[in-house]
Amino acid sequence: MKQIEFELNKEFRDRFQEALNARDNEFIRTSLEEVNPADITALLYEFNGEESKYVLDLLPVDVRAKIINDLDTETRKSFLTHYTAGEITEVVNHLDSDDAADILNELPIKTSEEIIASLDADLKSQVIDLLRYDENVAGGLMAKELIKARAHWNVVQCVEEIRKQAENVTKFYTVYVVDDFDRFLGKVSLQKLILTDPRTIVKDLLDEDIVSVETYMEDREVVEIMSKYDLESVPVVNVQGQLVGRITIDDVVDVITEQAEEDRQLMSGITEDVEEDDSVWRNTRARLPWLLIGILGGLISARFMGFFEKELVQVTAIAFFVPLIQATGGNVGIQTSSLIVQSLMKPGFVDDGLWKRLLKVFSVALLNGLFLGLIVFGVNWLVFGSNSLNLVVSLALFFVVVFASFVGTITPIILNRFGINPALASGPFITTTNDLLGLGVYFLTIHLLL
Amino acid sequence: MKQIEFELNKEFRDRFQEALNARDNEFIRTSLEEVNPADITALLYEFNGEESKYVLDLLPVDVRAKIINDLDTETRKSFLTHYTAGEITEVVNHLDSDDAADILNELPIKTSEEIIASLDADLKSQVIDLLRYDENVAGGLMAKELIKARAHWNVVQCVEEIRKQAENVTKFYTVYVVDDFDRFLGKVSLQKLILTDPRTIVKDLLDEDIVSVETYMEDREVVEIMSKYDLESVPVVNVQGQLVGRITIDDVVDVITEQAEEDRQLMSGITEDVEEDDSVWRNTRARLPWLLIGILGGLISARFMGFFEKELVQVTAIAFFVPLIQATGGNVGIQTSSLIVQSLMKPGFVDDGLWKRLLKVFSVALLNGLFLGLIVFGVNWLVFGSNSLNLVVSLALFFVVVFASFVGTITPIILNRFGINPALASGPFITTTNDLLGLGVYFLTIHLLL
Repeated sequence: MKQIEFELNKEFRDRFQEALNARDNEFIRTSLEEVNPADITALLYEFNGEESKYVLDLLPVDVRAKIINDLDTETRKSFLTHYTAGEITEVVNHLDSDDAADILNELPIKTSEEIIASLDADLKSQVIDLLRYDENVAGGLMAKELIKARAHWNVVQCVEEIRKQAENVTKFYTVYVVDDFDRFLGKVSLQKLILTDPRTIVKDLLDEDIVSVETYMEDREVVEIMSKYDLESVPVVNVQGQLVGRITIDDVVDVITEQAEEDRQLMSGITEDVEEDDSVWRNTRARLPWLLIGILGGLISARFMGFFEKELVQVTAIAFFVPLIQATGGNVGIQTSSLIVQSLMKPGFVDDGLWKRLLKVFSVALLNGLFLGLIVFGVNWLVFGSNSLNLVVSLALFFVVVFASFVGTITPIILNRFGINPALASGPFITTTNDLLGLGVYFLTIHLLL
Repeated sequence: MKQIEFELNKEFRDRFQEALNARDNEFIRTSLEEVNPADITALLYEFNGEESKYVLDLLPVDVRAKIINDLDTETRKSFLTHYTAGEITEVVNHLDSDDAADILNELPIKTSEEIIASLDADLKSQVIDLLRYDENVAGGLMAKELIKARAHWNVVQCVEEIRKQAENVTKFYTVYVVDDFDRFLGKVSLQKLILTDPRTIVKDLLDEDIVSVETYMEDREVVEIMSKYDLESVPVVNVQGQLVGRITIDDVVDVITEQAEEDRQLMSGITEDVEEDDSVWRNTRARLPWLLIGILGGLISARFMGFFEKELVQVTAIAFFVPLIQATGGNVGIQTSSLIVQSLMKPGFVDDGLWKRLLKVFSVALLNGLFLGLIVFGVNWLVFGSNSLNLVVSLALFFVVVFASFVGTITPIILNRFGINPALASGPFITTTNDLLGLGVYFLTIHLLL
């Protein structure tokens, strides 16, 4: 049994860099010989494109293919610029159809056409079929490799065919059954095939009770279905009901991870899919849009407060509580929208409708608002003594909590209706809106009561 | 082939409620007969505990077990209060060991002891073994059900034993091979078993090149390993190297989804695992802690600005730019910490060290700060004309961007060092800190320059 023994420490990296500089092919080959490709991928992130290519060229082509496939999209894009179309073709020929299509999708159209033209015949037709689909639908997630049996075969024929087909399929979960027109009928379990009389016809072992998805189904929905029904793979059918591919759970894990990352970026106001170790310029650019919107909000706030200069000159303490009002508005807005986003993501429940939802949010807001208003009133009363500003601040705070909850509720719902990822509403979008709203409520209360 | 035909619409729910009120067992049974248990679970969320129990009692016990297993923890906890220990025992007897252990863990200790005592013998010993592990480690994730072959068996014996064992194992991925002391040796593929001469010894078909995890490994680490090496299941060994269980990828999907949800809640300042449709009181309670900390920050801000009352009375416009300064500080802080959290979550890379990281963050902050500072200076100059406050605001903004980036960088790193989920740093924690910091920087600049 082999444990994960490959530790990526600084010593090894330095030793490896030395070997690279000295073109010590012997050391490079030997040190990577028994290493899992996934670990080599991690190592390559430490070297530049040319160095990485030098290392990969020393490895067997199937290992090289696996490593290039493991790279994240951005890294791979820039890495493959060091390769000729011929070299990429060699690599792609060793990949599953879905991975091959993903890589071809990333390349300049001219290069990818050149590569497709010279791919192995089988893979070529599979890839051409896959490239038709958008990457965010079932068709874009599926692989063409699967094990397929005809309903009229007997068990002997079937096992024979499975053996042949299995050579090209790495993840072997289910044997799908189709009719003579490739229309999807169901599955037959390997266990049943092993255990049954060899003369039985596949049709008689057929399990029709199987969930399938259609090529144009959105990836989020595919993820939901596979999690809900706890599937390790799902067959994909086209509009004619023909079996055209299958999606395996490892692809779904990738989608889930990407979605979580995307949501996190939306929630933190980053506009591009950026990572800490991307270039300074890229990092700056990914942040500027939301920062600018924040700045715009700030400038509007400044202008707005300008209208109340008279009040501010009379009672300077009005200004003291602006941060309190705004921080609370922002926090309440983000909390509310985050919960709404969470339930929007969970499908399958009957939608109780906007009104029931708002009533619930309103109750929570009333409770929170009352509680916070009273606390602030109490503290201010203890610190500054009784004064009318204290009452105004506490009242405004109460209203801000209620309004911010309202905005936090409807924003994600509206975004969702328009097909925009509602997680956007849990970020600087809500904070900026609520900063302005809070300020408005506060100064309106001052204007009316002070 | 059966597609997902079961749509949970309002009409059906109402009709179902009617049938429930009329105790129309015939309708309930027939309408649910061919429905996937996962869809029945979704339906049950619409009814109260007693009604749900009434429906479940009409269904076969294996379907009932699957549905109860599918419920989320909170719902199940309150739902099972309607059941006697005997009824729960019947259900648990139909579950896999890991699911059985999860449910028993949720029950009051007295009930769970009573149930364990009367479980089927096999399941009983498996569950007792599983209950020893914390739910956040590999031991707590694994199931005892797996297919195990001894190295000295021949293929005929092996296939025979697999047939027997397969009856109890729903997810059939890999045949694990152990020696006579149950020590883990590797795996043998079903394909190889089918294709080889029946007299071959399992040991000669052994594939040793397989990743395993140890019982005490943290769940986040298990997830990383399974995603990195693209595994659909991973064997779990104890400290003696004995094979004690296996973790399947569907469990890992659950862990990933839960982690994403946990991160999202931390980022939005919600302290309890709460959902929109939980009670008003629970929703209120989950939000108050961070709102109170925000309020505390606001009150400190108010007190702090009080010290500068003299300046504020002289130049009221100073107050106008407080929202601008604070919003930018908050946004920059959250953006920065979110990127740091993202890279902290990706393991396997050589840690470049704090200094290199800070230098990068510092460069990005300088660029962003310069850019934003210039824009604000320009806009203010156009709107208010040339004045010294404008210069102060722009300079303070620049410094706030730099400081907020610094705080956004070190906070998640520090939290991570202390074993706290760094996503906490991308939420109200950072906003509150940066609000205060921003105010401090702003008024210090005013004090020095104005």
